[in-house]
Amino acid sequence: MLSTLRCMAKTYIKNMKPSLAKGTRDFTASEVQKRRSIISVLQKNFELFGYQPLETPSFENLSTLTGKYGEEGDRLIFKILNSGDFASKVNQGDWDEKASQKLVSQISEKALRYDLTVPFARYIAMNHGQLTFPFKRYQIQPVWRADRPQRGRFREFYQCDADVVGSESLWLEVDLIQLYAKCFADLRLDVEIHVNNRKILTGLAQYAGIEEQLIDFTVALDKLDKIGEEGVRKEMMEKGISAQAIDKVAFLFDSKLSQEEVLTVLKSNFSQIEIGKQGVEELLFVLEECGKLGLSDKVVFNITLARGLDYYTGAIFEIKALGVAMGSVGGGGRYNNLTEVFGVKNMPGIGISFGLDRIYLVLEELGLFDELEGAKVQYLVANYGLLEASKAQILISQLRTKGISCELYPENAKLKKQFTYAEKKGIETILFYGEQEINDQTITLKNIVSGEQKTLTLEQFLG
Amino acid sequence: MLSTLRCMAKTYIKNMKPSLAKGTRDFTASEVQKRRSIISVLQKNFELFGYQPLETPSFENLSTLTGKYGEEGDRLIFKILNSGDFASKVNQGDWDEKASQKLVSQISEKALRYDLTVPFARYIAMNHGQLTFPFKRYQIQPVWRADRPQRGRFREFYQCDADVVGSESLWLEVDLIQLYAKCFADLRLDVEIHVNNRKILTGLAQYAGIEEQLIDFTVALDKLDKIGEEGVRKEMMEKGISAQAIDKVAFLFDSKLSQEEVLTVLKSNFSQIEIGKQGVEELLFVLEECGKLGLSDKVVFNITLARGLDYYTGAIFEIKALGVAMGSVGGGGRYNNLTEVFGVKNMPGIGISFGLDRIYLVLEELGLFDELEGAKVQYLVANYGLLEASKAQILISQLRTKGISCELYPENAKLKKQFTYAEKKGIETILFYGEQEINDQTITLKNIVSGEQKTLTLEQFLG
Repeated sequence: MLSTLRCMAKTYIKNMKPSLAKGTRDFTASEVQKRRSIISVLQKNFELFGYQPLETPSFENLSTLTGKYGEEGDRLIFKILNSGDFASKVNQGDWDEKASQKLVSQISEKALRYDLTVPFARYIAMNHGQLTFPFKRYQIQPVWRADRPQRGRFREFYQCDADVVGSESLWLEVDLIQLYAKCFADLRLDVEIHVNNRKILTGLAQYAGIEEQLIDFTVALDKLDKIGEEGVRKEMMEKGISAQAIDKVAFLFDSKLSQEEVLTVLKSNFSQIEIGKQGVEELLFVLEECGKLGLSDKVVFNITLARGLDYYTGAIFEIKALGVAMGSVGGGGRYNNLTEVFGVKNMPGIGISFGLDRIYLVLEELGLFDELEGAKVQYLVANYGLLEASKAQILISQLRTKGISCELYPENAKLKKQFTYAEKKGIETILFYGEQEINDQTITLKNIVSGEQKTLTLEQFLG
Repeated sequence: MLSTLRCMAKTYIKNMKPSLAKGTRDFTASEVQKRRSIISVLQKNFELFGYQPLETPSFENLSTLTGKYGEEGDRLIFKILNSGDFASKVNQGDWDEKASQKLVSQISEKALRYDLTVPFARYIAMNHGQLTFPFKRYQIQPVWRADRPQRGRFREFYQCDADVVGSESLWLEVDLIQLYAKCFADLRLDVEIHVNNRKILTGLAQYAGIEEQLIDFTVALDKLDKIGEEGVRKEMMEKGISAQAIDKVAFLFDSKLSQEEVLTVLKSNFSQIEIGKQGVEELLFVLEECGKLGLSDKVVFNITLARGLDYYTGAIFEIKALGVAMGSVGGGGRYNNLTEVFGVKNMPGIGISFGLDRIYLVLEELGLFDELEGAKVQYLVANYGLLEASKAQILISQLRTKGISCELYPENAKLKKQFTYAEKKGIETILFYGEQEINDQTITLKNIVSGEQKTLTLEQFLG
């Protein structure tokens, strides 16, 4: 509040119909509470696993963000216009040409956070001297992207990340898989945790003699589920990968091979390929240790999984929700150098991310929110007029001290109107504390859903 | 994480030293936890009082925000530069003149939230047909202002507001005062809730015959604490208020008058002044009802209190923290028309705000955070190597299922290094689960603060 609408009356614009900015949303009480219930599960488990919270500012220096997300990413960063006379400091030539691209960094020196990773890297680079490594942090904050809005894609959305930097221990892979499993179990959402390893993909490309085409190879392979063997072969060949090379890895298309059989083929193919061998070993360690923790049925080796491959260097994760048509609800992996771009080397790490909006949609679709909800107001106290309301205030104050949410209907309106208010607000029980009750030291409770009504002594009621 | 640093390696800029954007802050784990402890007290009590959460987007259409905060406010709104070729759609004349002011709305159609009130008004205006009134909402979100940063003033900070719209009932004044009292009691912060009424100030100006100078009069009066009677008189006279008029209200300067005596003088002065009389009646109602609720010693009638006067129309609140040198830690009041500027009339309401950053500083200064903290990791499990770590994982998983936070040191490093990690992270107890313990089905706990060490059977330990 803080005295801010003071100028509203003065600048009254008749019938101005306000709207939301494109790609943004208001969250109503029940939406906030549902979102919070998810966030609180994540937060609780992050802390249970020894991750500690970090919050970074909503905007960063533009130079911190540009060049980190590729050309397309740079375009999608929301830039903040410099305050004051921004036009005074521009290059006149660029201005005359109206060269928007070149002018951006001249009239804008700040930009909205595009993800949580770059700000985290910036934080580590600025503070690495004071931090204790391995550094385990989690971060749950909104990010902004100037994407074209579409169903399920917004310009403001939350990311929920957990990362450890400063260690190459494979126990962290095991830790993060457990963290995924525990969070989704607590959300009562059935998921598969798909796991792959960048080193295996690199090894495969070496084995097929197409190291130079690693990205094209994996991007096409990643689509196997969607476009089938034929589609993948076609795309690979269009990218210039020879039929001969593809045939060398044709076992990838054989859906009849079990996880174990694929690994056996890989081991034999990688007999001379060091990086591939290492990838298989890492993968096996992770699968085995997860098995000991009872997670075998959750963790699936998925050799087609690539995700941002040019970033990940070891393990790659992706979470598939079962029983609903929805892409991944989370993903992550191991990387070598979080902070090199900011001049700080040797900062390997691993991180995972939860897709809050998608988890929300899945829980909604599966009807899993009922039990998570709550936070409704428990009692509405009917307003019978000044004297009764004044007495009721004391009762209300006692209830709140006990942690019971309640409110007085603020006006001495017709009971019907007060009932309607309760009904619309989802308050199930109305308390009557009128002259009679006050004299008798009793209170009448009416459940407006069941219609049930009873009168208790105040002593009984307040327990 | 979500595959975002993929381009970092490519765009590696040597030794680029990153920094925070001016006026922004990173919040470390302990800061986040302290801030959260305050927010959680507010949130819990807001809901206890029947207020329900609302979240609005970080940015709004620029047109929604401009003209609502005065000229100075408009300047301080952070505008977001349009994406793409923003320069292509501008008025050529304005461009040639480099008329920054005129160009703003041509190259920027979105802006960051400046406060929570205007977005709330926008929300009400857009949805009033579907809402149940009186509508009680609370909102705890960051806002952004392009202010010159200085000690304690940031460009990104949180506001915490609770408002009711759609009712003129004075019970809401009583409700919000109780809410203030309960929140600060739960925060264990000793405060005074200063209360005034705009109608009393208007009445006073009428009584002194200076209605036209109401704002100058109250702005000067508001400074009585700081600049004393002489200062206030001087400022009033500089603003053209006659000495004669000032003399008529000279009783305001008499610090010896009790609250009751001031009210007696007001009542007699207002015998012919309807609005003043009404203000006194409203105030007395609020004071009396708060008295019945045991809040007499918290609620103080402060006739010099003005706050954003041209916005408030009835009650005015301000919270003073006792025992520390700090301005107000909260404020609010009653207003007539929240949404008129958006074409929706008759939306009276009342709201209060909590100053999160200032509350934080006060709690810190008074050392009141100790008990609120917590959320530290409880156990570090020492890493003795592959076999032991693999067994330890199962133990860790059992502890976490019990809600006990713990982590394995991810590498088989020297114990000294593992101890240092625990110490720096504030983990007090290290668990040893080595070969001996595994064979004996025991576990050794070492408190690194007290040095105390004990061995328990696993059964005893896991209870």
